[in-house]
This record gives sequence, C-alpha cells and structure tokens, in this order.
Amino acid sequence: MKYHKSLMSLGHELFPICRSLTGDGNRKTLDIIKKEVPELKVYSVPSGYKAFDWVVPREWNIDSAYIKDSSGNEIINFKCNNLHVVGYSTPVDKKISYEELQSHLFSLPEKPNAIPYMTSYYRDMWGFCISENDRKKLVDDVYEVKIDSKLQNGFLNYAEVIIPGKTEQEVFLSTYICHPSMANNELSGPIVTVELIEWIKSLTDRKYTYRVVFIPETIGSIVYLSKNMTHMKHKVVAGFNITCVGDERCYSYLPSRCGNTISDKAAKAALGEIDSTYKKYTWLDRGSDERQYCAPGVDLPIATIMRSKYAEYPEYHTSLDKLGTVVTEKGLQGAVNALIKAIYFIEENHKPKINVLCEPQLGKRGLYPNSSSLNTKSIVKDMMNVISYCDGDHDLFDIHEKTEVSMSSIIDILSKLSSSDLLYE
Amino acid sequence: MKYHKSLMSLGHELFPICRSLTGDGNRKTLDIIKKEVPELKVYSVPSGYKAFDWVVPREWNIDSAYIKDSSGNEIINFKCNNLHVVGYSTPVDKKISYEELQSHLFSLPEKPNAIPYMTSYYRDMWGFCISENDRKKLVDDVYEVKIDSKLQNGFLNYAEVIIPGKTEQEVFLSTYICHPSMANNELSGPIVTVELIEWIKSLTDRKYTYRVVFIPETIGSIVYLSKNMTHMKHKVVAGFNITCVGDERCYSYLPSRCGNTISDKAAKAALGEIDSTYKKYTWLDRGSDERQYCAPGVDLPIATIMRSKYAEYPEYHTSLDKLGTVVTEKGLQGAVNALIKAIYFIEENHKPKINVLCEPQLGKRGLYPNSSSLNTKSIVKDMMNVISYCDGDHDLFDIHEKTEVSMSSIIDILSKLSSSDLLYE
Amino acid sequence: MKYHKSLMSLGHELFPICRSLTGDGNRKTLDIIKKEVPELKVYSVPSGYKAFDWVVPREWNIDSAYIKDSSGNEIINFKCNNLHVVGYSTPVDKKISYEELQSHLFSLPEKPNAIPYMTSYYRDMWGFCISENDRKKLVDDVYEVKIDSKLQNGFLNYAEVIIPGKTEQEVFLSTYICHPSMANNELSGPIVTVELIEWIKSLTDRKYTYRVVFIPETIGSIVYLSKNMTHMKHKVVAGFNITCVGDERCYSYLPSRCGNTISDKAAKAALGEIDSTYKKYTWLDRGSDERQYCAPGVDLPIATIMRSKYAEYPEYHTSLDKLGTVVTEKGLQGAVNALIKAIYFIEENHKPKINVLCEPQLGKRGLYPNSSSLNTKSIVKDMMNVISYCDGDHDLFDIHEKTEVSMSSIIDILSKLSSSDLLYE
Repeated sequence: MKYHKSLMSLGHELFPICRSLTGDGNRKTLDIIKKEVPELKVYSVPSGYKAFDWVVPREWNIDSAYIKDSSGNEIINFKCNNLHVVGYSTPVDKKISYEELQSHLFSLPEKPNAIPYMTSYYRDMWGFCISENDRKKLVDDVYEVKIDSKLQNGFLNYAEVIIPGKTEQEVFLSTYICHPSMANNELSGPIVTVELIEWIKSLTDRKYTYRVVFIPETIGSIVYLSKNMTHMKHKVVAGFNITCVGDERCYSYLPSRCGNTISDKAAKAALGEIDSTYKKYTWLDRGSDERQYCAPGVDLPIATIMRSKYAEYPEYHTSLDKLGTVVTEKGLQGAVNALIKAIYFIEENHKPKINVLCEPQLGKRGLYPNSSSLNTKSIVKDMMNVISYCDGDHDLFDIHEKTEVSMSSIIDILSKLSSSDLLYE
Repeated sequence: MKYHKSLMSLGHELFPICRSLTGDGNRKTLDIIKKEVPELKVYSVPSGYKAFDWVVPREWNIDSAYIKDSSGNEIINFKCNNLHVVGYSTPVDKKISYEELQSHLFSLPEKPNAIPYMTSYYRDMWGFCISENDRKKLVDDVYEVKIDSKLQNGFLNYAEVIIPGKTEQEVFLSTYICHPSMANNELSGPIVTVELIEWIKSLTDRKYTYRVVFIPETIGSIVYLSKNMTHMKHKVVAGFNITCVGDERCYSYLPSRCGNTISDKAAKAALGEIDSTYKKYTWLDRGSDERQYCAPGVDLPIATIMRSKYAEYPEYHTSLDKLGTVVTEKGLQGAVNALIKAIYFIEENHKPKINVLCEPQLGKRGLYPNSSSLNTKSIVKDMMNVISYCDGDHDLFDIHEKTEVSMSSIIDILSKLSSSDLLYE
Repeated sequence: MKYHKSLMSLGHELFPICRSLTGDGNRKTLDIIKKEVPELKVYSVPSGYKAFDWVVPREWNIDSAYIKDSSGNEIINFKCNNLHVVGYSTPVDKKISYEELQSHLFSLPEKPNAIPYMTSYYRDMWGFCISENDRKKLVDDVYEVKIDSKLQNGFLNYAEVIIPGKTEQEVFLSTYICHPSMANNELSGPIVTVELIEWIKSLTDRKYTYRVVFIPETIGSIVYLSKNMTHMKHKVVAGFNITCVGDERCYSYLPSRCGNTISDKAAKAALGEIDSTYKKYTWLDRGSDERQYCAPGVDLPIATIMRSKYAEYPEYHTSLDKLGTVVTEKGLQGAVNALIKAIYFIEENHKPKINVLCEPQLGKRGLYPNSSSLNTKSIVKDMMNVISYCDGDHDLFDIHEKTEVSMSSIIDILSKLSSSDLLYE
C-alpha cells in the first residue's frame, strides 16, 4: 500500500481550523480533504431544512473573540485556541463585572490545565472556555468581552465519495468534521477515512461499492439519512462509524443496535487478531452517529471500531486532546489497519462449499506437508477443520467461530483449496 | 389506594374457621369474603362429579372431637385447635388401649411444640394430630376417642369474580380456601386476593378482564378447569397462583411450566424492583395449583409470586403457622404490592414504537434537563436507551432486559414520550 | 444377555493377524468374525475403484521381513511383531550401509521401549519400525534389509450385517479392521461390535433396522459411502463410530459435526449414567471415520463413544497397545454396556403424551407409595416431574434435560404410566 503523505501531516494541516456544525471552517476542511480525494463531492443544505425531527440551524462563523481586563490586558484570545469560545456563541461586545463574567465562563476544576470544549447549538447563549488555572487568576474588575460571531441563514456542508465495486451492494463509512482543534475526537476520523479511501481504490477487484461521508455529527448524519435512507436501507450491507481512531492506548469496539451484523462480526474478528485485549462496549455505551444509523426504523448494519473511546480517556473534549501527544502516526495507522482488516473480511466473506463428498485427499494435491513438525500438523488440522464446515451453510465468520481458526488463516486456506479446485465457485 | 379495613382484621375473622376440601367451614369462609367482595359468585359442585381424572369426594363436616383418658381428663379437644383432627377423618367413638391410640396419633419429634397438619382425603381413616411434647405425657391407659364427623354426599364450593376490562383477554388469579387454621399457608392467599380485587376495581382504565377464583386446592382447580378450560385457554393471557403471601422473611418466585410467559417476566421484574435478593425456584419445586394450570394440554400462563414458599419455612403445615407471629400486616402488604406491581406491568405492557426516524430532538420538547447533574445525565441516558428500542418489535419486558432500566422507569419514560407525541399510539 | 465366549478370547484370536487397508490379513480377520456373526456379508472392491475424491490402492501383502547385520544376526524380524514393517512398504532386498539404514528406521526417543506404528499408503517407500533402545544398539556395519512384500492390483474388503427391525429407519454402527497388532486402537472396535450385534439380535422387539460395517478406516468408509450414501441419508437416524473401546481408564465422547443429533444426546445420557466424569471432546478433536460420515453433504448423525481416545493415551499407535495390559475384559465390557445403553435410549425414545388433563390421580392407581420415606418422596417427585413434560412435544432426551431424571428412570416411569393406561400409545 502506498501512502502519498503521512497521516500526521494531513492532521497538522487540518488541526488549527475552527470547525463546527456549519461555517467556513467546515468548507475549508472539505477543500483540503478534496485535495487528497479528488472524487469528493461537497453538498450544501440550507438553514431551515427539515430532516426528520430536526432542523438545520443557522450557519455560525466567528472572526475573533477575547476577554480583556480594565487595563486592556488580554485574558483570553480566540486566536490562541478556538476552544476558548463556546461553539455557536451569539455575538457580544460589552463591559461586564467580575460576577457577570463568571456566569459565562466554563472550566474543569478536576483538570486545571485544560480548556474544555463546549457548544450550544440549539439554545442561544455566549460563553468562554478557560483553564481552571487561568480562571483562578481573575480578580474583581470590569472586563471587556467581545465575540465577533455571526449566526445567520447559510448552509450545512458535507461531502460524499462513491467508489463503485462489482456489485451495487454497499459498504458505508461515516466520519465527522464538526469538531474544532481536538485530535482523537475528532480529527482522527477524517484522517483515517482519507487513508481508507486510498486503500479501497487500490482494491481492483472489490466486490462492494463504497459510500463514504464526511459530515457534521448528529445533524449531519440525520440530514444525510433524510436524503439517502431509502437507497441505503436497500443497498448497505455493512459499514463503520469512524471516530476516535488516533491514539495508541487500546482498541475498542462498539456494537450496532442489533449487535450481530456482519459489521459486528468483522470488527470483532479484526480486533481479535490485532489485539485480543481490545475493549468491548455495549450499545448502551454509544454516543456517536451509530445513534442515528441504527435508530429504530433506520437499522443500518453499522458498527464502530475505535482506539480510545470518546468519554473514556482523560483528554476527551478538552484542549489536551492534541496531535502528537494523544494522537500519533502509529495510533492512526493502527486504526487504519484494523478497519482495513475488518473491511477485507467483509469483502472476502461468503459461504464456501467443498465440491467433493467425504474428505478430499490432500496428499495428491500437495496440500499435505511432507514435513511433520508440530507447526505443519496444526496447519493441516486447521485446513481439515475449515473444510469440515465448507458446507455452503456456514459463512467465514461462522467457520471462524466454530473452528477458532483466525479469519486471515481461513481466507488463506480457502485460497489454497480454491487453487486446487476443491470449492464450488 | 384505600383500604376499608386492615388485612389482618379480615385474617382474624377467617382464621378460626375449620376449612377443608368441602364443608360448612368453606361456605362460611366464602360468606365472609363476599362481604368484602359483593360481586363474588359462589358455586356448588356435587360429590361424585367427575373432573378429568378425579372425582369430587363426599362432603366432610365435623362438630366435635376429643381424646380423654380413663379419668375423663381431656388430652386433646378439637375446639382448642382444628388441626388436632386429621382432615377427612371418619367418625369414631370408642375406648382403645394406649397401643392402639399410638397408631392414630401424628406428631413431629423435630418440632416438639407443633401440632402437625394432616389430611386423608381419598383413603378412609381417622387420626389425631398432637404436639410431640403432649404425646410424651401419655401413659399406659385406656382412652376414649371421639370424632363426631360426617362424610356424606354434599357439595364442593368455590367462588369466582369476573371484573370486566376494555378487552375480553383475561388475567387469572387463583387462591385456595381449603386450609384450616394456618396463616401463611394458607390464609394469606385469600386475604391478599381480596385486597387485589379492591385494587383491580380501582383501575378505571384496565385493559384486561380479571377472573379471580377462591377454590379448594388441587380438586378445586381441577373442577374449575373442567368447567372453564376451553374458555380460559382462549382468553387468559397471564395470571398468578396466590399462596404463601403473608410473612416478611423473603420474596419468592416459582415459574410457569414454560418459564417464559408474560406472567413470569412480570413476576421477575416486579420482585427485582422490590427486593433483588428474592428467591428463584424452578418448575421442579412446584407444589400448588400451578401443577394443574400448567399441566400438559392445559398450559395456562400462570406463575407464582410468594413470600416464604410452602415447605420452605419452619412453621409450614403446623399449628406454628400463626397470624401475628408468622403472618403480619407488613408481610401481607408486601405481597399485595408485589402482585400489584406485576399486574401493573402486564397492564402497561405493549410494543412501543417511536414515530420519528433517527433520534428525536429532546431539547425542543423540554425532555432534556437543563441542569447537568450526574442524576439528570442518567435520566437522559435511560430515556435515550429506551427510545433506541422503541421499534415496535420489543415489548416493555424486552426493553427492560436490553436496557437494564427498571420497568417502572420505562413506563414513566414512555408516559413522557407519549405526552410529547413521540409514540405511535 | 448371554455371551458365547469372552470378548478377550476373540481378541486373542484376532490380535496376531497382520491387517492393513487391504490384504490377506483383512480377509482372515473377516472370516473369524463371520464365525461369530454368520449373517456377515463380505464385499470386495477392486484396486483402482474410484470413491469420491479417492481411489482404492493396490493390495498389499507381506510374507516376511528382517534386518540382519554383516554377521547374519537378526536385528529385526517381522515374525516377532508385524509393526516392525511400515505398512504398505515396497519390497526390498539388498545390503546397505549403517547411514542408509538410518533413513529407513522409525523409532520414538520419548518411548524407548515402543515400536511405533507407521504406514505409507499413498507414497511408495519402505521402512522398518524399531524401539529406540534397539536402535541405539546398532553399530557402523553393512546390513542386509529384506521386505518380501507385494503391491499389486487386488481388492479392498469390508463386511456388512443388516439386522432388520420393525421399521426401515436405521441405526448405523461402524468399526474398522485395518490396524495390525494393537489392542485399543484398534482391535477393541471389532470385538465390541461383534458383542453388540449379539445383543441387537436378542432385541426381539427392536424398532430400528441395524446396519453394521467392518471396514478399513478412511478409504473403507469412503468406499462404503460411495456405494450406500443415498440410501443411508434417507434411512439412518442415528449411529456410532466404534473405536478405542477397550481400556478401563475413562469413558469419552466425541460429537457429530452437528453436535446435537439423537446419537449425541444418547451418548451423553448413557455416559452420564455410567460415569459422570466422562471426557467430552469436540468436533475439532475428531480423527476417525466420523470425518467421513459427518462430512459436508454426507451429514449422517454419527457420534462416538470411546474409552481412552486415540492420540490421548500413552500406548497409542505403538507396540505397547497390548491386549491384557491396555485392553481388558472389563474395559471392553464397559464399552459394550455404554453402547448398549445409548442404543437402548435411542430405541426407547419417543414423545410421550399423558392422556388425562391436569395431574392424574396416582393414588387410585397404586402409583403413590404408601410409605413416605425420603426415597419414595423422591420417586413420586420424579414421576410427577416426568408427567409434567409428557405433552407430546418433549422427547425422552428433552424430558431428561428438563427434569434431571436419568434416562433409565424416565423409561421406568413411562413403563409404569403405560401399564396404568395413562399414556397415548
């Protein structure tokens, strides 16, 4: 597999941009991604568009924001960190007392160095996020607060890539572009997804068509479903929500609502091969766009493969969730590999059927190793066990479960059997 | 809920009456219950009536009974305790030796203060029950034994109340009136059932029709089924056998033969909310009228909620099973509450279906608490989890199992969703 | 049951014969078995016969074989132990160096007293098997090696007995005759099978037709299936592969591929009654003719009951697997009893249905013991529990699982119920 650039370099380009549900930052983000994925098609949906129970909000843009004390010293400046302003803050420009200021400040006493990440998409307010340490330095004074933001009718943007395969059945991948400067949740998702697109395009013989979307979380997936659900319910056979895929601390799996789709099986088999200690969450632990994709009546077969899950790692939703410290090239690449493996298993899955009755004679086909080391005995045993379930009823995941042979080994064994013309094609 | 009188006061009125499979005591018992439940309809079935494999026995009545020694001192008198005479004893009036007397005495060496409870419904004999301590005082003497009983053709009596609901589908409740002066097994059943009838009548909007019977155990339920089974197999959707519902020591559950009926699910969910340490028995531990209601070919969905189960508490089937010591107002009321809860869950059960695709926007409906305490986060999480299974396929018990949210909370959440017009009705 | 001779005496007669996939030893073996089972029909299949993916090999016979040193001293002589020659060795007669000899010797360093058992059915070679201790005594010398064997077109032989029953549905038993002088694996199988045939013939009222075969392993079962599979798939309802049934150390069970056939249930219930500590293997541990009988597309309901399983006991596939030390009369008889019990359960299995509604009145039928010891209470409880599942839906194995009453007790209880006319016949 070739990588035209490192995953981290794409990350560094995207990290500083101020993203939200809507706005210039999102369009800029999609422009940069389009340089990597020329097939990307960007869509605009106007404010006020109704999607199921939801309405696309006004577009939010922000030029600058700061707090100054009565001497003109800057306490906070949005230019230093775009987390400093509560997302979707209404504009403000006035002088207020220390007491009034306090009611517009958000900090985390238990993480005194961290600027928290806050939004208020659907309730008008304004506020600043500040580290607990900086907050403590504030004294009784008159403060100038300014947020030069605009909330006006505009557009929500998302992007889509369709990569055709041999069949119209689809694998769906979704990641989100609504988080400002944080790395694991969520710049890792778009970065890893760009890399996956590259790999999918390299699969010259791919069975499935791939539908990949870069959207704002929740309202974005709801809008996307409102436009594509009928088609998707008909075509999508598997898929993954791609989020929190950047650190090195662990691998995690969160099931679909049904819990037993091919996506779930592929995720578990892939992670089982990569790190058998991976964390298994339940549907009750969900918190990302699987909430929409697996909602009652939507019911798409979407599971989630992660590194450290949202809300489960200390830097989550703060300024501490940084590129380089939390998210690394190795962490991102690990997630790419896990997702590639899972998709590969889905591509390869079928119900193999042996074309001879009784056991085939392996020896005359050179499938029975001459050497009789313990290792080769185990290879033959695995092959015989796999063959014993090639009955046209068990798919690869069933065979994996029954034989305890890894999916990768099963695929390898089936390839040998196929080369020996032992399988119905 | 109003209680016109305490449960214990009804108990004290009924306790001294000598009940058996048949006889004046049973009719007197049903008369007293009818004062509480005017709708009660009492039925008479003649001796010799054939019910499936059984025949209604002769009616048994007893006026007096005693043992006197040769000096005329009373050793035992039926007036002091109606357990002193083996139920269905044939009449006797003669003088017998110490040795012959011994073969007609029953006592419990391991419980020396207790008069045991004995019956011989289907084999003619006579006998006295006596405490081991009193038995030891007997000396070699000639004894006068007298039992002034009558065994003659008569009637078996039972009573039935039908409380109509919005549908003809029925919930069936059964308790028995064949035990003489013992409290937990069995005066508690009729007392608790009278209270349940009061509560059911207070449910102005009840979905189900309620069929409640007061019967002698075994032969009574068999007779009742012989007359009503075709109707019941067609209409009864749930039900409980009500026995041993009076002490405070524990709650118990005994499943139906199938083990997975709605009655079983309701019993487990109700007891789980009241006391998660409740005892779970199996079908193999059965011993009451579920033996008939769940028999092959009958197969009604009847489960059992108890306090301390028959044959599992030390006072069982002895004179020690007393009102006030074993059975208390608190014990009875606990059972009433458990049964009310189970019936309430059955009344409320359905398969809710959310009427929007994707997640509903809770905020615009005031369903998203403004305060963000840990408690409110848990409330929102429970609501979202419940919604995620409102797919029209899962009933409330399924949702309870999947989400681990209590049935009571699920009903509360669905009520809020319904008020916000989020559910198909 | 009468035994015309001890199992061991048949064993001693068969043990010394040199058996292989084909050859005079096999025909001699079948001749001896035919003396015990006159109905035995012996079949011949010519070399070159194609059976599914396999071809019947040339027939192999051997008259003599030895290794001598340069002084004419015999190092090894086939007459002393027919394991000394690798099965299907090509003929050889020449003088070779110590070094060349080494490449044709097989021994087991970890079992220095044992002559290993080796074959090379499908690859031409010659070789000698020798104990590690004897091998160490060899010095640098010129050795005379001679194997007077013949590999030429001939026949593969197997034998079949059909014992008709009341129905055409069949129970299939298979054992193999291709192992030379070893006792547990495999002389025990044919010996035990001969005894089972005797027992089956003694079942005057047998429900099933029995198909019993004595075949060479693998190629024999494949040939047999190639000729009989269509009929067998239509008729065979249960069966056992009979191997390693001679020692006293344990009982073992290896499931069919499906794992839940009536044969599996019968094997587990039978072994559970005989020795609850019996070993349970999985389909992945298989290694005998169930590999063919349960192969995809063949799918016969064949399970395996063993004593110590092949490849799991120290003497396996060596000269140490002897009659008298490893295999004993008691070991063989234990396996006979286990298989008889399993077959008996299959013969008796059906779905009993009680012909009264509600519980039957046991007392009037003398089914309720008068004595009330703990033992009789348990007998009544077992009977009532069994009755409670006589609903025409549960078969005996289901009832066994639900009630935890042993199959033997269930059959006894049903016999009593049947005598009292309580079951639909």
